[in-house]
Amino acid sequence: MHNPQLNKHGELQHLLTLDGLPKAILSQILDIAAPFTEVAEREVKKLPLLRGKSVFNLFFENSTRTRTTFEIAAKRLSADVINLNVSTSSTAKGETLLDTVDNLCAMQADMFVVRHASSGAPYLIAEHLQRTGRDHIHVVNAGDGRHAHPTQGLLDMYTIRHYKQDFTKLTVAVVGDVLHSRVARSEIAALTTLGVPEIRVIGPKTLLPTDIDRMGVHVFHDMREGLKGVDVVMMLRLQNERMNGALLPSSQEYFKFYGLTQDKLALAKPDAIVLHPGPMNRGVEIDSAVADGGNAVILPQVTFGIAVRMAVMSMLAGS
Amino acid sequence: MHNPQLNKHGELQHLLTLDGLPKAILSQILDIAAPFTEVAEREVKKLPLLRGKSVFNLFFENSTRTRTTFEIAAKRLSADVINLNVSTSSTAKGETLLDTVDNLCAMQADMFVVRHASSGAPYLIAEHLQRTGRDHIHVVNAGDGRHAHPTQGLLDMYTIRHYKQDFTKLTVAVVGDVLHSRVARSEIAALTTLGVPEIRVIGPKTLLPTDIDRMGVHVFHDMREGLKGVDVVMMLRLQNERMNGALLPSSQEYFKFYGLTQDKLALAKPDAIVLHPGPMNRGVEIDSAVADGGNAVILPQVTFGIAVRMAVMSMLAGS
Amino acid sequence: MHNPQLNKHGELQHLLTLDGLPKAILSQILDIAAPFTEVAEREVKKLPLLRGKSVFNLFFENSTRTRTTFEIAAKRLSADVINLNVSTSSTAKGETLLDTVDNLCAMQADMFVVRHASSGAPYLIAEHLQRTGRDHIHVVNAGDGRHAHPTQGLLDMYTIRHYKQDFTKLTVAVVGDVLHSRVARSEIAALTTLGVPEIRVIGPKTLLPTDIDRMGVHVFHDMREGLKGVDVVMMLRLQNERMNGALLPSSQEYFKFYGLTQDKLALAKPDAIVLHPGPMNRGVEIDSAVADGGNAVILPQVTFGIAVRMAVMSMLAGS
Repeated sequence: MHNPQLNKHGELQHLLTLDGLPKAILSQILDIAAPFTEVAEREVKKLPLLRGKSVFNLFFENSTRTRTTFEIAAKRLSADVINLNVSTSSTAKGETLLDTVDNLCAMQADMFVVRHASSGAPYLIAEHLQRTGRDHIHVVNAGDGRHAHPTQGLLDMYTIRHYKQDFTKLTVAVVGDVLHSRVARSEIAALTTLGVPEIRVIGPKTLLPTDIDRMGVHVFHDMREGLKGVDVVMMLRLQNERMNGALLPSSQEYFKFYGLTQDKLALAKPDAIVLHPGPMNRGVEIDSAVADGGNAVILPQVTFGIAVRMAVMSMLAGS
Repeated sequence: MHNPQLNKHGELQHLLTLDGLPKAILSQILDIAAPFTEVAEREVKKLPLLRGKSVFNLFFENSTRTRTTFEIAAKRLSADVINLNVSTSSTAKGETLLDTVDNLCAMQADMFVVRHASSGAPYLIAEHLQRTGRDHIHVVNAGDGRHAHPTQGLLDMYTIRHYKQDFTKLTVAVVGDVLHSRVARSEIAALTTLGVPEIRVIGPKTLLPTDIDRMGVHVFHDMREGLKGVDVVMMLRLQNERMNGALLPSSQEYFKFYGLTQDKLALAKPDAIVLHPGPMNRGVEIDSAVADGGNAVILPQVTFGIAVRMAVMSMLAGS
Repeated sequence: MHNPQLNKHGELQHLLTLDGLPKAILSQILDIAAPFTEVAEREVKKLPLLRGKSVFNLFFENSTRTRTTFEIAAKRLSADVINLNVSTSSTAKGETLLDTVDNLCAMQADMFVVRHASSGAPYLIAEHLQRTGRDHIHVVNAGDGRHAHPTQGLLDMYTIRHYKQDFTKLTVAVVGDVLHSRVARSEIAALTTLGVPEIRVIGPKTLLPTDIDRMGVHVFHDMREGLKGVDVVMMLRLQNERMNGALLPSSQEYFKFYGLTQDKLALAKPDAIVLHPGPMNRGVEIDSAVADGGNAVILPQVTFGIAVRMAVMSMLAGS
């Protein structure tokens, strides 16, 4: 099957998911991101790689934090950025998604950063562009439903590589609400591609997908068991709306069993790193002592996230 | 009577309406727009004509699509663009429209792009600027009530000229809800000025203004009659809020009589072009087969719209 | 006590309040602002002083007008500006204020312009940055609760100096709702620092703070008495929500006693200037004849406000 993310030369055409993305492309993105982390330290944090390009933040679902990271990345590459909160716009007037896209293409868009509550919306747009021969326009998935959030996955990979270098010697634990996470699947796909030999998933049965076994991971319902000897702990955010529902007894109960405390973290390797995609629920999935402690690399993740997004954008549309 | 859009040298001072705009100015805008269509094809889609100028998108009524076109046009001219959604702002605090304008002028605004639900608001602002001697600040009407939407009219003229060259040999039909359209009057005014010998208006009596005869057009209630032999079909958008009201039986009924289908379009000249201002209601005023067919020039309209807005902005405030 | 606004070299590190700001710094800001008023008159209103710097407008409370003035100032200094309406963002997801700030810092923010309904929020952020050793990131208070709004105070000082030169010979009256004003305290602090020998406060008892006497001002409940012989009249905005409450009988009653009319203004010196922070409630705290009359310097205040904000931003983060 043709991978819709790659063009006929095997180069990145769109970034839709990390699932199925070749290892060479994954590594290339991380390699290209590295020097961008240095740009951010400079007095003038600007590069002209996307100068005169029009980047549309096409957000069908509100997410100020994610929008901000893409907006900063695009502006540091000197692009013109247009923020479109589409939920309040043309779709309300009965226009179809693809008519909206066609219109923006006709305004000479170069890139769409797409956030949508429905899984697959960025694919639909990418396929439409391909079908209509507009190969010069690129799509970046900024989160679609429960499906994927590939730049979050990439920044996590960048963070792990930064601190641990060699993926092929690591034990990595993904902890929490895998079922509702759009990050977890991206993570597991990427970790597998990059050669991580042991991936563990830790969480209560009600928050793990039923097909979790087919993902090639080890499942643990006991967090202490799962954390033993791991190099990397990837915490997932527990969404507020799950807390008072049927899936969980209470956030206190959740914290007791699956909240990351110093006590539980002590079971991991001493130099284990702790990741979290943010925003954190302190005292629910993570204790403040861990969030602010020496093993946490949560803020570096954010910094690397800008660099990774700059890398993806410049690979797709850079001159 | 003095035309408030022109300065004492007869040059464009504000763009408020196409009604009464001299043919020379109309043609000048279209001429200046032409090279801007090429800028959009370039690798770096930027010109420094408005560098350091402050353009305020002063939207008293939400319209993401229109705001976006002006924002792109201004950014491609290197202006600083400030988006002000005024409905949620100072007017809510009891400030008058002209106090808001005076304040923004005091911030050294160079141009106001004004969208307002009330007919005449952009005029009020332009007259206020003139009365207070602030000739260096310009107003572009981005849609005021039912009155005018001149850049939409201009991009339609640009599109017709692009495909048909000579206005003086054309038969043009304007189809649909003329009564509530802010585009239709601009269109008819401009087509007349540019020398179109036959302008037809097609629609049900309930959606045509009572003074339609005084506009120098031929009125048709039978769409098939009206489309016979036309060179240009300008479809109007049927606003959702009209559909379930007293004016129309139903959208299905409307489509049957006034929806543009391939079948009805076959009565026009074979090389007739079909325009629509968007967003389209597919299956209401236009059939998908026409919207996506070979006669439609709906997406080129959008592209030309950016060039026309760049032309107007650079004529008004360009250095 | 260490002044958190100054660094160890006594230079401006954050701008949080005018209260306690040394006279030398106050005067320095006004001096630096002066040439920026000329930038705004130029054809290209741009300076590269903040090029490549990332300025975050962090608005926890909506204020389009204030946000616009900072956005313009930052853009004229060539900064990248990111607008964050935080009320609708991460805090809704349960993230703490300081986690939000840490995240934005990790995106290499250079400056936060903070607006918050709670007094002290900008301090909390500034202290957090200091405690965590991030001296290269600066905070500007754009209004916190009833506490302070220092750039408004600064632009008023600039305006007074522009028209009256020497502060040490002036009688200044501050009129209206001092109790709920975040401007009034800043004003009084700055006027005192700059050597104004007589500051009067005029208003009904219900709208004056109980500790008003400790501010070193003369209190007047009779506006005519208070205005006699003053050089400067600083009107405060009466907030709508006060008008129908327990504190005031009605807006007509208020206008009768404390609204600035030509009649009352005649008691001040003939060349007295009238300031108002906007937006004005014409016919409530100020009569239109005064607002549009020869003594009003309300629009120049706005112009100077941009220059003052450019001065503060370039002092904090300029290269």
